[in-house]
Amino acid sequence: MILGIDIGGTTSKLGLVQGGKVIARARISTTGHADDHAFADALAREAELLTTDNGRPTAVGIGAPNANQLTGIIEMAPNLPWKHDVPLARMMSDRLGVPAVLGNDANAAALGEWRYGAGQGIDDLLVVTLGTGVGSGFIVNGRLVLGSAGNAGELGHMILIPGGRDCTCGRKGCLEAYVSIRGMKATYMEAGGAGGAEDVKAIADRANAGDAAAKECFTRTTDWLAIGLANAVCATGPRRIVLFGGIARNGELLMAPLRDRFHSALLNIYQGRVDLTVSALPDDDAALLGAAALGTLG
Amino acid sequence: MILGIDIGGTTSKLGLVQGGKVIARARISTTGHADDHAFADALAREAELLTTDNGRPTAVGIGAPNANQLTGIIEMAPNLPWKHDVPLARMMSDRLGVPAVLGNDANAAALGEWRYGAGQGIDDLLVVTLGTGVGSGFIVNGRLVLGSAGNAGELGHMILIPGGRDCTCGRKGCLEAYVSIRGMKATYMEAGGAGGAEDVKAIADRANAGDAAAKECFTRTTDWLAIGLANAVCATGPRRIVLFGGIARNGELLMAPLRDRFHSALLNIYQGRVDLTVSALPDDDAALLGAAALGTLG
Repeated sequence: MILGIDIGGTTSKLGLVQGGKVIARARISTTGHADDHAFADALAREAELLTTDNGRPTAVGIGAPNANQLTGIIEMAPNLPWKHDVPLARMMSDRLGVPAVLGNDANAAALGEWRYGAGQGIDDLLVVTLGTGVGSGFIVNGRLVLGSAGNAGELGHMILIPGGRDCTCGRKGCLEAYVSIRGMKATYMEAGGAGGAEDVKAIADRANAGDAAAKECFTRTTDWLAIGLANAVCATGPRRIVLFGGIARNGELLMAPLRDRFHSALLNIYQGRVDLTVSALPDDDAALLGAAALGTLG
Repeated sequence: MILGIDIGGTTSKLGLVQGGKVIARARISTTGHADDHAFADALAREAELLTTDNGRPTAVGIGAPNANQLTGIIEMAPNLPWKHDVPLARMMSDRLGVPAVLGNDANAAALGEWRYGAGQGIDDLLVVTLGTGVGSGFIVNGRLVLGSAGNAGELGHMILIPGGRDCTCGRKGCLEAYVSIRGMKATYMEAGGAGGAEDVKAIADRANAGDAAAKECFTRTTDWLAIGLANAVCATGPRRIVLFGGIARNGELLMAPLRDRFHSALLNIYQGRVDLTVSALPDDDAALLGAAALGTLG
């Protein structure tokens, strides 16, 4: 049994995972604590309550934004309350008395798909998270690729169009500036869309209702994403790509053209050797299962 | 002691490698043999002559175009005499009585730099070969990345400019269409260069002599290469990138602007964490040392 902890900007979730299922869960607010130590104390209290009722975990896995798996530190995360480095792996290991592994949320998602989801048994895997940003986790030879500084797997910041749209990273033309939620909203407006589309779901609804700009937005997005994925394949040659996150949940509106465009964009030697699928994990539990999968590395 | 064999389109070289040096060498023509078995017989005869004089190797490493390391097969190489699959690893192992590892020439170069060259001790490494094409070998966690089908590491076929120049692979806008020898000649002409520049050396000589189009060609090439390298960093987060091959031998004409542009193109989290250098292996022996490095995996 592994305890998974998913640290979000407003809420942090805890879940006990056994046999690939979340068997018990809890949540606390991420904000409103005196400092990071008080937050860790609160997490530990919830964990003790969970384990009193359900048995003790052998390890803890923690997924968080800006987490460095090599150091176990959350590094100055812009969307979390603490603007300094927080060595949360050690803080939780000290409090709970079991090994703790901290990793970033995209890597947690990748490990979750690999251990429990659509990537089971695939030792060369790429998991891409499509949401507010574009995250990714590369698994190569059955191991998560961390890179020399613990920050490998930034597919969203591969430059897709040199000199293109401004990206939040300060550079121009990153994949994330095109295929994230923000990117899709920009594309919809560029395609002549009417105002008031608050999110990708709204654009999808309009596309399904026949709105030409919304359909054009999905076409352009799939073209860009197809190239981004084909480029990633050139790096590590995965057997499978799993898409994860809100944008990926638009079903065949996204996937039907994407499969087609991906196979056109793919270098000939990879044709028929890479499949493309969508996360099979339940939405509510995916982040907890990913965090727990990090814990299995401990 | 390892026997390295480098299979080229016209000539195949053999070298005995000991202590990171080629201590004896031989060569045969790749063409003019009755079939692939006759070619393997001829290679084995040369190998026996070398080893009679110098002692027996414990393994054989073979670098070849279109070689699949997972299968040990040269797969229908367009630039070699045999248009069918040639299981050269097994053919040489049978003839020489020692383990043989076959790999593609870009991966051999990567392993050569890692074992014997500018990548020694760097377990997260990227080696990029700049020549007729753009090849690459990614080393992650101290292992060469082969990918699920044995064909990972095609940095030259990451799409740099969607819808851009025609590439030999049949798609458009690949990095290789811009920063290879062919790409640089095209760029020189686009920049208004005069005719008659037969190769990159000629363009470099003109740049050094003040030719504006030749200087512009190097500027554009370094801009493109910088983005291609920065994109590769986003995948596997290497500690070092080693450039290899003819184009990389243009010294500071290439490297001074490239270092500058690379650091501008790099995502902030990688700043100061990736260095960029040029192969330190002697030109004549690099391919043999790379092949021998493949042999050390056997």
